Amino acid sequence: MEIRACLFDVFGTVVDWRTSVSRDLAAFARQQDLAPLDWVEFTLEWRKLYQPSMEEVRSGRRPWTILDVLHRESLGALLERYGIQGLSDAQIDHLSRAWHRLDPWPDVVEGLTRLKRKHIIAPCSNGNIALMVNMAKRAGLPWDCVLGAETARAYKPMPEAYLASCRHLGLAPAQVMMVAAHNGDLKAAKAQGLATAFVPRPTEHGAGQKTDLAADPACVDLPVKSFVELAEKLGC
Amino acid sequence: MEIRACLFDVFGTVVDWRTSVSRDLAAFARQQDLAPLDWVEFTLEWRKLYQPSMEEVRSGRRPWTILDVLHRESLGALLERYGIQGLSDAQIDHLSRAWHRLDPWPDVVEGLTRLKRKHIIAPCSNGNIALMVNMAKRAGLPWDCVLGAETARAYKPMPEAYLASCRHLGLAPAQVMMVAAHNGDLKAAKAQGLATAFVPRPTEHGAGQKTDLAADPACVDLPVKSFVELAEKLGC
Repeated sequence: MEIRACLFDVFGTVVDWRTSVSRDLAAFARQQDLAPLDWVEFTLEWRKLYQPSMEEVRSGRRPWTILDVLHRESLGALLERYGIQGLSDAQIDHLSRAWHRLDPWPDVVEGLTRLKRKHIIAPCSNGNIALMVNMAKRAGLPWDCVLGAETARAYKPMPEAYLASCRHLGLAPAQVMMVAAHNGDLKAAKAQGLATAFVPRPTEHGAGQKTDLAADPACVDLPVKSFVELAEKLGC
Repeated sequence: MEIRACLFDVFGTVVDWRTSVSRDLAAFARQQDLAPLDWVEFTLEWRKLYQPSMEEVRSGRRPWTILDVLHRESLGALLERYGIQGLSDAQIDHLSRAWHRLDPWPDVVEGLTRLKRKHIIAPCSNGNIALMVNMAKRAGLPWDCVLGAETARAYKPMPEAYLASCRHLGLAPAQVMMVAAHNGDLKAAKAQGLATAFVPRPTEHGAGQKTDLAADPACVDLPVKSFVELAEKLGC
């Protein structure tokens, strides 16, 4: 079947969360004269709370909750753990929205702009709609619409996250290509019948990254080097 | 409060459904050598089934159903009433998606493009996501995301259609402006705390239109002549 839409994982695949969040936190810390801290480490610790917080929702132990709320709670716990005190609620809210202010990898805007000419392009992220919209406006990501966890009310890699996104476009899974830098995401998408493309982001986790350095042939239809190559391969 | 996002009614406000659907149907009829028919009248009859079909869902008599399905059912009933026979299911599906192929009023693309520079812009329509996305790609509508009935799982003018759209943007209703050519839509939005702008579309229903020729001061904050004037008034 012909591919009509490309869905994109966002954190790590479209944007460099590690560099962007740590830089945002460090800038805030300088402005507020906070005590020196390794903000890259803080960012990695924050990210470690991401999967467990979503797992509470996936498991049904917690009712549907958007990622902005989970990010805010994780940040609160982390500030306490690091002994960072004296911030106002408004300041903590602002910091927790660091995830709205992420920079794209260098190939992203050109690749998406080309892909958009012939295909529907949309994020299929665990980030909520407001997060995706604010990020896109700041970074110039030309999405046709925002799909993913909040419209599906299910966090990846649950099947419904992928299936609802296809259904909302009125397309069969085989007409939709999931694009990610994570083989696990693509494995879950493939299991629901979507086509898959892998784009490596070998510094997502820093210089010594060991995971997701190459596409897993068991779940990847199309391995590419960049979003620009993806556009070329899809005839855009 | 400062306006951060503009939500738009679509059928009638952004696009000229009457001219576009009737032209689409007439072109199909010519191609298929169907018997002569007044396709504008047929379109108006189709549109008459729009509110009753949504009312089944609003009332709870029918579970959540997207507009593409309602449009398809109404078209089936109408083809039968007009005695139009011999079309394949694929042809009827194609015709029912005439609502994906609507042309914008002349001021729309320029106005939206300017508004998008400073504001989030999104449809808040009873049309489903696929309908909105396909329409936007064909017509060049530069939405930041697609909100409205399907993401809210509620048809306007139910409060949830407006409130969920604000919530999905992470904004208070007072930070959001609803834009429509229909005072009824704006009355319902205003009741939920949204700001409102009225844009007249005096030929939406044809030359003799008697309704919605002017803004109702009871529910309209900002009456404008066009989307371009709206952009100017909002400083874009």
